[in-house]
Amino acid sequence: MSALRPLFVVAGIGRAAGTGAAVARRFSKEGYSVALIARGEDSLNALSDEIKKGGGEAAPYCIPSYSPDDIASAFTSISAQFPNSHYALRAALFNVGYAVWKPFLEVTAAEVQESLNTNVAAAFAFSRSAILKFKENNLNAENPKRGTLIFTGATASTRGNKMTSAFSIGKFGARALSQSLAKEFGKDGIHVEIMTGAALERSRDQPLSGLSPESIAQAYMYLVNQEKSAWTWELDLRPAQEQW
Amino acid sequence: MSALRPLFVVAGIGRAAGTGAAVARRFSKEGYSVALIARGEDSLNALSDEIKKGGGEAAPYCIPSYSPDDIASAFTSISAQFPNSHYALRAALFNVGYAVWKPFLEVTAAEVQESLNTNVAAAFAFSRSAILKFKENNLNAENPKRGTLIFTGATASTRGNKMTSAFSIGKFGARALSQSLAKEFGKDGIHVEIMTGAALERSRDQPLSGLSPESIAQAYMYLVNQEKSAWTWELDLRPAQEQW
Amino acid sequence: MSALRPLFVVAGIGRAAGTGAAVARRFSKEGYSVALIARGEDSLNALSDEIKKGGGEAAPYCIPSYSPDDIASAFTSISAQFPNSHYALRAALFNVGYAVWKPFLEVTAAEVQESLNTNVAAAFAFSRSAILKFKENNLNAENPKRGTLIFTGATASTRGNKMTSAFSIGKFGARALSQSLAKEFGKDGIHVEIMTGAALERSRDQPLSGLSPESIAQAYMYLVNQEKSAWTWELDLRPAQEQW
Amino acid sequence: MSALRPLFVVAGIGRAAGTGAAVARRFSKEGYSVALIARGEDSLNALSDEIKKGGGEAAPYCIPSYSPDDIASAFTSISAQFPNSHYALRAALFNVGYAVWKPFLEVTAAEVQESLNTNVAAAFAFSRSAILKFKENNLNAENPKRGTLIFTGATASTRGNKMTSAFSIGKFGARALSQSLAKEFGKDGIHVEIMTGAALERSRDQPLSGLSPESIAQAYMYLVNQEKSAWTWELDLRPAQEQW
Repeated sequence: MSALRPLFVVAGIGRAAGTGAAVARRFSKEGYSVALIARGEDSLNALSDEIKKGGGEAAPYCIPSYSPDDIASAFTSISAQFPNSHYALRAALFNVGYAVWKPFLEVTAAEVQESLNTNVAAAFAFSRSAILKFKENNLNAENPKRGTLIFTGATASTRGNKMTSAFSIGKFGARALSQSLAKEFGKDGIHVEIMTGAALERSRDQPLSGLSPESIAQAYMYLVNQEKSAWTWELDLRPAQEQW
Repeated sequence: MSALRPLFVVAGIGRAAGTGAAVARRFSKEGYSVALIARGEDSLNALSDEIKKGGGEAAPYCIPSYSPDDIASAFTSISAQFPNSHYALRAALFNVGYAVWKPFLEVTAAEVQESLNTNVAAAFAFSRSAILKFKENNLNAENPKRGTLIFTGATASTRGNKMTSAFSIGKFGARALSQSLAKEFGKDGIHVEIMTGAALERSRDQPLSGLSPESIAQAYMYLVNQEKSAWTWELDLRPAQEQW
Repeated sequence: MSALRPLFVVAGIGRAAGTGAAVARRFSKEGYSVALIARGEDSLNALSDEIKKGGGEAAPYCIPSYSPDDIASAFTSISAQFPNSHYALRAALFNVGYAVWKPFLEVTAAEVQESLNTNVAAAFAFSRSAILKFKENNLNAENPKRGTLIFTGATASTRGNKMTSAFSIGKFGARALSQSLAKEFGKDGIHVEIMTGAALERSRDQPLSGLSPESIAQAYMYLVNQEKSAWTWELDLRPAQEQW
Repeated sequence: MSALRPLFVVAGIGRAAGTGAAVARRFSKEGYSVALIARGEDSLNALSDEIKKGGGEAAPYCIPSYSPDDIASAFTSISAQFPNSHYALRAALFNVGYAVWKPFLEVTAAEVQESLNTNVAAAFAFSRSAILKFKENNLNAENPKRGTLIFTGATASTRGNKMTSAFSIGKFGARALSQSLAKEFGKDGIHVEIMTGAALERSRDQPLSGLSPESIAQAYMYLVNQEKSAWTWELDLRPAQEQW
């Protein structure tokens, strides 16, 4: 039915001041219902309330961790609250990131594990739930795409640098995943993308990069709307003055 | 003055059925005056007339070749017809390409020369004229960008393949140019971009790729509208089903 | 002292028929003592015995798993058996790999974890032990390099493909690590390298690639001997006939 | 016949103090006869004499320019002096480069042309002559490779930077060529390689990079000797302390 309302799921909204929140606001403005997944209950509820007050439809899903099980549970709850009879998942954003900048010899085994769990294993689980849900959508003239799965990457997705051994192992991993998925599911009308840039730096209250969350939201909206004949897998965003 | 009308210059419109023409139509629809540079007079005039009939402002500049002198002359004529008192060049597209697919040992010295002249030396000259013109624009709150210079690339911009020795030498060269320019002029508010994808193949009446000209036009419009905090230098576009 | 005997540590020798074993044999032939780390006791002892029978010096270190603790323990044992008074670690090879080719939706959470543990976390721990040991070496005219740390990568180190989501997340991660380390420790005279190619495929008794273990050993010997003015971080190896 | 003497042709030896000369000396030491092509007669003759005094076989071919015709003529002369009855061309090095570092707006059309002619069109012509000559070699157990064609690249082969618009258009072009040739002729046993690094900078008496010509010669010798199961197309060389 064309009457299905488009649903957008985002995981990772931090203090509701960065990329995840900006994208949720933007998608809400464009007519999407938004399901918000995060660990921090206060920010999560605040953002959900803000969107609802603005006339949008939103729901918060607070999870204790980004373990595969917790992510799968969140999607189960989302499916219950936004049933296929009225909603179709059209876009999903994995905006979670565990960032650590440290000399290599100071990195602990726990930090390595946390980077791999949060940046990669969680991305894997999120992708699984999103893709299974996209597959429930029918392809038709009005919806030539089943859905769009986006990953927020970072400079560390494509370059290992001096202080980024623990961070880049995770971000490279998520990039590998996004490329594999883009190739495997393109033929099914599922569009997989990754944005590389300095987004995560920003979201930690260190405006190192100058990448504004609203600009990233603009980029994601463009990617979601790309026609099927011309899809982008990887989009790099840099401030005008940056030398890369 | 904010009353200046935005001007768009495009070089390379082929038989008016491909990327260059689609982009000109799209920019006209979005309120740009369009200056069209090409070698083939009939297609050029037909496209210019079509845009004018549709209510847009357009002017054709037929040049005998893409030599640096002919390109500079075209820009001189454009400046006369679209004076700074009423117009500001906001976007320029180098959509010219000389494509040749041949086993290496069959490529002639003339073809090598033609590829380098058309794909690289002409791009260099076009960039020079466009950038000098962008520099005449003032930066202000309403126009934080002086202008956007776009190159239409190809798969051969990033990969040399069996049959593409003569083609890729030219397309790699244009990509190098676009990257140098992006880095040199970003700080001046001049945004330089290259689109890689199978656009040129299409424009030669071989719809190898399925990349639709309208999708490319949509991409270029997004790139021109990117906010200054989040610019893309290289954008790759692929049909959903392509394995790259 | 120049009388110190050069030591080579390799982790990962499979069934002693692939890359790890070929490299161990080659380094032994070039005068290195070799410390062999692996999980499979029989193959490990067989290779160690073979090298000793051939006149070389070798010692096997069987570990139950590639956990950070087990790897650190192996290095402690190696340090005891090859003390700094007589030996200097000059080269270390992380040749371990967990390879899995599967459609994304068939990959289990356990396989994701195993890929991240074996391909990345183990590489992290191995690097830590090797680098700490390299740092015990003095730089001097005869030894302008403290040591060389090599990773055996794969095609999946640089490209995510349809069947490689679980494999490439791990191999991308190890590549990120190698790049970070190369940049952080180059100034200390520690050379870090990764070989990308189809080596791991081969080591699983599937001679998909045709990359011979002896050719890889030749490459690693060249890398270890590169002069300090011209180091390579990433070396790609492909069979002559392969289209990449 | 296995009695054929291996021949090495190098184009570009500058003042006989850089990469080209170091490689010629090294190949002579390893038993190759060397044919030297260059524009500067004095340096050329001096190097040829030096190699002959050292017991090697060498011959100078002074050409007025690196035009396709002049390059083809040099190869004709080489074939006459080193006939197939006694010699087999085994390796060829294109070490020519026209380097220019300038702000984009200061680059002249003549410099653009010179960069494209010297860095790309000359490389195309040199490759043609070398490959045609390689094809005269028979493949057999002793010579599983017909020949190795090497290009000396630069950092500007893979990155366009602020001051390198005119330089990188040429170096990107040569890299595209080398990749196309590697893919087209690998199956014929012809190995094509490019070295990226700061070699050209060095050869202009600006020891910017610290890359020693002898290290590059060591690298080229390794590449020429790579076994057919494990070929490298692109080799990057950086001084240990460089942050890239």
